[in-house]
Amino acid sequence: MADPHRAAVLRHLLAMPPVAALQPTLEHDDGQRLVLAAPLAANLNDKGCAFGGSLVSLMTLAGWSLVTLRLLRAGIDADVFVAESQVHYLKPLYEDLRAEASARAPADWDGFIATVRERGRARIHIDAAVAMADGALATRCQSSYAAILRR
Amino acid sequence: MADPHRAAVLRHLLAMPPVAALQPTLEHDDGQRLVLAAPLAANLNDKGCAFGGSLVSLMTLAGWSLVTLRLLRAGIDADVFVAESQVHYLKPLYEDLRAEASARAPADWDGFIATVRERGRARIHIDAAVAMADGALATRCQSSYAAILRR
Repeated sequence: MADPHRAAVLRHLLAMPPVAALQPTLEHDDGQRLVLAAPLAANLNDKGCAFGGSLVSLMTLAGWSLVTLRLLRAGIDADVFVAESQVHYLKPLYEDLRAEASARAPADWDGFIATVRERGRARIHIDAAVAMADGALATRCQSSYAAILRR
Repeated sequence: MADPHRAAVLRHLLAMPPVAALQPTLEHDDGQRLVLAAPLAANLNDKGCAFGGSLVSLMTLAGWSLVTLRLLRAGIDADVFVAESQVHYLKPLYEDLRAEASARAPADWDGFIATVRERGRARIHIDAAVAMADGALATRCQSSYAAILRR
């Protein structure tokens, strides 16, 4: 957590009461792939598995964190919003949550960053998923995020 | 809250830690339209408006509650799951949250109930939205829910 941008994004997340309730931690971040984890115990539904709202929130936040970090590392101060998401609930999850996000097309990053610089705003497609220990997917989330320059 | 089914559904919701954190209340329920409300203060994001994850959770729970209540009132003991959702984040919400859910086609209810009875499982499309005081929509969520007989 030496990375100041990473620490800033984490502070951002944990400052939101409904996000703090999920108890998320940043498990992986290499600029292409970002993983947010959360304990099952804090995210249980009435059936003893992960609550769908927690799964969507964690996947959406993983994408938001990935986009925000790419912008911060490019020296861009922008607000990042999720614009829309298609969510598929595939299997119940009885394990701790691990939401992994990455750009649908990694090549999109350069164009995204360039467009934010030139036009002050841009969109990018981020795919996120929560996989189980056996590799099967519990949930998938395909989203588009918008970034708008602050100045 | 004299309705025992309604009380049971509320107990169900509040028993889930991540749901209790949203501080939801059942504001309206006439069998066709169900509204879950939640205070903005408990659902703030980093921009001082409603957190997207809370909006999705509240809309998804409103649909889940509507479907579950229809089944309970038909004397059917079934598990209800959300299968997929298409979420559109339209405008930032700076007010308390009010998520309203209803069947995409009200006529679907009879077929849904009959199919659960006959085949032990059925699906129904539920549309939910969070509107602002001025009537404009902050978010929309189109979902399909599956019900599976417990016995």
